[in-house]
Amino acid sequence: MSSVLIFYLSYLLSLALGLACVVCVCVWNSQWRCGFAWDGSALEFNWHPVLMVTGLVVLYGFGAVVYRIPLTWGQNKLPWKLLHAALMLLSLILAIVGLCAVFDFHNAFKGPNLYSLHSWIGIAAVALFAMQWVVGFAGFLLPCSPPTLRKLLKPVHVWLGGSILLLTVAACISGINEKLFFVLKANISGAQAYSSLPPEAVLANVLGALIVAFGLVVLKILLNSEWQRPDSRPENMTYAPLLQEENE
Amino acid sequence: MSSVLIFYLSYLLSLALGLACVVCVCVWNSQWRCGFAWDGSALEFNWHPVLMVTGLVVLYGFGAVVYRIPLTWGQNKLPWKLLHAALMLLSLILAIVGLCAVFDFHNAFKGPNLYSLHSWIGIAAVALFAMQWVVGFAGFLLPCSPPTLRKLLKPVHVWLGGSILLLTVAACISGINEKLFFVLKANISGAQAYSSLPPEAVLANVLGALIVAFGLVVLKILLNSEWQRPDSRPENMTYAPLLQEENE
Repeated sequence: MSSVLIFYLSYLLSLALGLACVVCVCVWNSQWRCGFAWDGSALEFNWHPVLMVTGLVVLYGFGAVVYRIPLTWGQNKLPWKLLHAALMLLSLILAIVGLCAVFDFHNAFKGPNLYSLHSWIGIAAVALFAMQWVVGFAGFLLPCSPPTLRKLLKPVHVWLGGSILLLTVAACISGINEKLFFVLKANISGAQAYSSLPPEAVLANVLGALIVAFGLVVLKILLNSEWQRPDSRPENMTYAPLLQEENE
Repeated sequence: MSSVLIFYLSYLLSLALGLACVVCVCVWNSQWRCGFAWDGSALEFNWHPVLMVTGLVVLYGFGAVVYRIPLTWGQNKLPWKLLHAALMLLSLILAIVGLCAVFDFHNAFKGPNLYSLHSWIGIAAVALFAMQWVVGFAGFLLPCSPPTLRKLLKPVHVWLGGSILLLTVAACISGINEKLFFVLKANISGAQAYSSLPPEAVLANVLGALIVAFGLVVLKILLNSEWQRPDSRPENMTYAPLLQEENE
């Protein structure tokens, strides 16, 4: 099987896994956790998993691999850079709104913030992501940034990008696990214990497995050197870049 | 800074982070969780985090990067393959004993096994690791395995190796998080709630952060193409391999 065919199969798999993650986290929180509100209640908290999984994992993963699509390699890189930056900005905004939901929820009952390992890993992921977006924008999109800086920055940007994905996967797994232990207790009226694996627990565990699978496929696409966009510009380019010659 | 110097700095960092993980998990369970026993009690459970972190994370990580050390590239590959296989086997044995500890603990009070997302991710990691070890032994160490099979197997082996590390990091983070919510409850006599971040919580959270940092440094070493052992055998080889010519 050719490398390009394996790429497209991996890419389709990442799209399917990403969409499955979004469907699972939405169904879990709308059907089993009573839906959404923005009122400091548990319904506001429900935005947290939905926005983190949709923004910080799925959109982030989709945004990370846009340069890897071989069909785009014959085209000007700039529109793809703008798409990459836009997807990542949308991912970051969703993640920040998702953090607001959980801070609001804790503050509404004067609960403490940022004490659990889940929260430490998660906040580190969002902080690194925000830093990565700002440095990426300044280094790769501003016309004044010198090509030598871009060459130095690129491997760090790719490695930090993959590392942030690993952090977000670890944060999601610990968060889903923690949430299920919190809410699935036999002593809460009508609730079944997590340990008896009620349908909600199976759904949320499957969501966790899908997130891990999505992360692994995205990292595979990201790190395979054969699937990296070639550095040199093709000779048959037909339209000029908007900002400057892009060769990094 | 030269690539070799950066490698050795990264390698020293991975050694330091790995040792720090082992020290932290041992101090946590011996000083704060009352030490160890093999009697079905919570003291038997304490072997679980110690053996998983020491075996499945630290020894696994050390074993994963042995081929990357440039000093070994001028030498016959076989002793390093045997060291890699031995470290991985020791890691797998420690992980299996670590699983026995938690199954024994649950079975002693007829508690259920393998329902949490932590346990699903963790058992998947150990099962994939056992499969990877057997396939790796058959494919890379048995003299009857053909070189073409080895060439096909190698990228899959490297990718699955990195993936297993990602699974184990996610399992460790969710496990430490879960354990701290279980044991640090204000309503248990003398205990402080996790949310008030008592010293034990800080130590175990730091352990989680060290595990993530160790995983990231090991993955960086593993996936950097400049640090991969060159395929071709050096001309100044002085002693013959024990099993067969190793060129994969």
